[in-house]
Amino acid sequence: MKFTCSQQTLTKALNTVSKAVTSRTTLPILKGILMKASSDGTLTLSASDLDLSIEKKMDVNVEEEGEIVVLSKLFSDIIRKLPNEDILIEEKENNTALIKTSYSEFTIVGLEADEFPNINDIEDDFATISFDTEIFKNMIRKTSFAASIDESKGIIVGVLMEIEPDGVNMVALDGFRMAVAREEMKNTENRKIVVSAKILNEVNKIISEAEDESDTKIMFSGKKAVIFAENTKIIIRLLEGEFIKYKDIIPTVNQTKVIIDRPALLESIERASLLAKEGKNNLIKLIIKNNLLTITSRSEEGNVIEELIMEKTGEDLEIGFNSKYVMDVLKAVDDEKLLMEFNTSTTPCLVKPIEGDQFEYLILPVRISSNY
Amino acid sequence: MKFTCSQQTLTKALNTVSKAVTSRTTLPILKGILMKASSDGTLTLSASDLDLSIEKKMDVNVEEEGEIVVLSKLFSDIIRKLPNEDILIEEKENNTALIKTSYSEFTIVGLEADEFPNINDIEDDFATISFDTEIFKNMIRKTSFAASIDESKGIIVGVLMEIEPDGVNMVALDGFRMAVAREEMKNTENRKIVVSAKILNEVNKIISEAEDESDTKIMFSGKKAVIFAENTKIIIRLLEGEFIKYKDIIPTVNQTKVIIDRPALLESIERASLLAKEGKNNLIKLIIKNNLLTITSRSEEGNVIEELIMEKTGEDLEIGFNSKYVMDVLKAVDDEKLLMEFNTSTTPCLVKPIEGDQFEYLILPVRISSNY
Repeated sequence: MKFTCSQQTLTKALNTVSKAVTSRTTLPILKGILMKASSDGTLTLSASDLDLSIEKKMDVNVEEEGEIVVLSKLFSDIIRKLPNEDILIEEKENNTALIKTSYSEFTIVGLEADEFPNINDIEDDFATISFDTEIFKNMIRKTSFAASIDESKGIIVGVLMEIEPDGVNMVALDGFRMAVAREEMKNTENRKIVVSAKILNEVNKIISEAEDESDTKIMFSGKKAVIFAENTKIIIRLLEGEFIKYKDIIPTVNQTKVIIDRPALLESIERASLLAKEGKNNLIKLIIKNNLLTITSRSEEGNVIEELIMEKTGEDLEIGFNSKYVMDVLKAVDDEKLLMEFNTSTTPCLVKPIEGDQFEYLILPVRISSNY
Repeated sequence: MKFTCSQQTLTKALNTVSKAVTSRTTLPILKGILMKASSDGTLTLSASDLDLSIEKKMDVNVEEEGEIVVLSKLFSDIIRKLPNEDILIEEKENNTALIKTSYSEFTIVGLEADEFPNINDIEDDFATISFDTEIFKNMIRKTSFAASIDESKGIIVGVLMEIEPDGVNMVALDGFRMAVAREEMKNTENRKIVVSAKILNEVNKIISEAEDESDTKIMFSGKKAVIFAENTKIIIRLLEGEFIKYKDIIPTVNQTKVIIDRPALLESIERASLLAKEGKNNLIKLIIKNNLLTITSRSEEGNVIEELIMEKTGEDLEIGFNSKYVMDVLKAVDDEKLLMEFNTSTTPCLVKPIEGDQFEYLILPVRISSNY
């Protein structure tokens, strides 16, 4: 294998592909990046942690075809620090790679290319949907934070993607809150897949870095999803199992409805949280009375009272929350105004847009003692 | 105590003063900031970890004089997150402080103001020198990194400031390298003080943030130094003991002299360091031969050869270094070209400017085995 390639192009590609390299693997080959130079002038870089695989193609000047696996971190560090000129990369004896520019010459030890997993081993029965990239990124941002981060919790570390003929729903929950994002779009498919929220966040970064602004194409079978963005192919192992029937837990009747200013509420809760350290549940109390929303909190270090004007219909109410769960929701959306719906102080609160149903959040309250 | 003050002014002042607050103290009062409102409309904020004390004055609207100590982190977090409007701060019963804006009201527990250390307890026999602020900052930057970071090493955690009638020298060393910065200036003093390098770096930050561009005035007695920057007074406990007689260890005769391009050398060594992980001493080898400087390094992961054109007078030489110590020097100065002087492969290397004597660095070599 022998090719030359611009330092900048290679750095950018390595930055993308290395997102699939995990440092915590017990399989040494997974610390590597597979470089394959083909006689048609294409260099293909691949990396995989078995759950997430990334493949990126680029045009280079191939003098000799072949393939080699190099250590991802070392190779990326070297390429990043080389001057912005053409770099010669050549396979040498004993599985080593030569990296050469005008004044620098590295010889690094490689890994066995044969041991690299075949990431393109994909079944045939793929269904395909096409997403406006901005909408896809937005739906990930609106939902993925609500998934469980506890790997022992099974399927709820994932985000459900529910593809229906007239739209797509994305849903994540962790037992304390739930996020639902909806987008209308015509599909010929009717399927459900669950993708790890952690991987979806990586996907979000990769498609954000792509310079191509066209749609994001997603193909999926029973076990894998393949996402195409620019010259990058992202292969994801889907999570197996039945996702929670989320529609059943959304309350339909709500006694108290308030319309609040999102940025102002976020700032007030951020301040109130500074004293919300009683125990570990960041407890804040919302007092909904007439047209005033009062947020209180206290700890050994003091107490705070925040006030906000709001529009209210229905009953007055006092309800406690873990401030983190409310702030997460308020940060995930961009709307100036939001609708919050409540039933009692022990039933979940719903957060929605003023109009439409593009998202819906459900937050469980925290019981507050009567002397709080 | 009762005053109002703009949120922005108070945030900026807290940012400065809190640099003297340590979280690792066993004395609870040192986690506090003393606020003193005087009837002349001055608010004085003070903080201290006993080694470093900072006092900042500002004009506020004082309604009632008095003083109170508040927890630095909590108080700063609250003030920072309040909207940019006027804040009312008032002492309430049981040593609590009320913090109030239009829609927010905090009551926080304070500490006993009587317990706060008297940071202005300073002897009378002060000598004074005046520094161009940019020069002072530059001399700190050029030297402080070379001081020892091992608190058990005594005086060498400090930077020597040697005030002589025709100039000031600053010197730091840690047993592996030494940094000397010199500046010509007329002084009426002839004294030596040693200041903790860690504290000097804090001082550098504080005077960099000051908007006033006038000179930095330094007053010092046998035990303390007081630095004035804008409305900030920085009081430093000096280190006690005799500093190493540094002039004795600078070699005067050097066989080999080379002039190199600093940015190019820095980049080459940064790249070579990627493979300089044999043991823990980041070993790189410099081969000085004719007009070519070759830098090599190796580890189990591979090897690297970097080449640089240089100007040389004197003997050819091979010498090993801990790459970190060379890079630290190359990053501390801005000169395009530098002079490096060597005697043998086991004696220190000197790094100087091409002209003048504004700085001088001494770096100990690492012995290289013959088969390296």
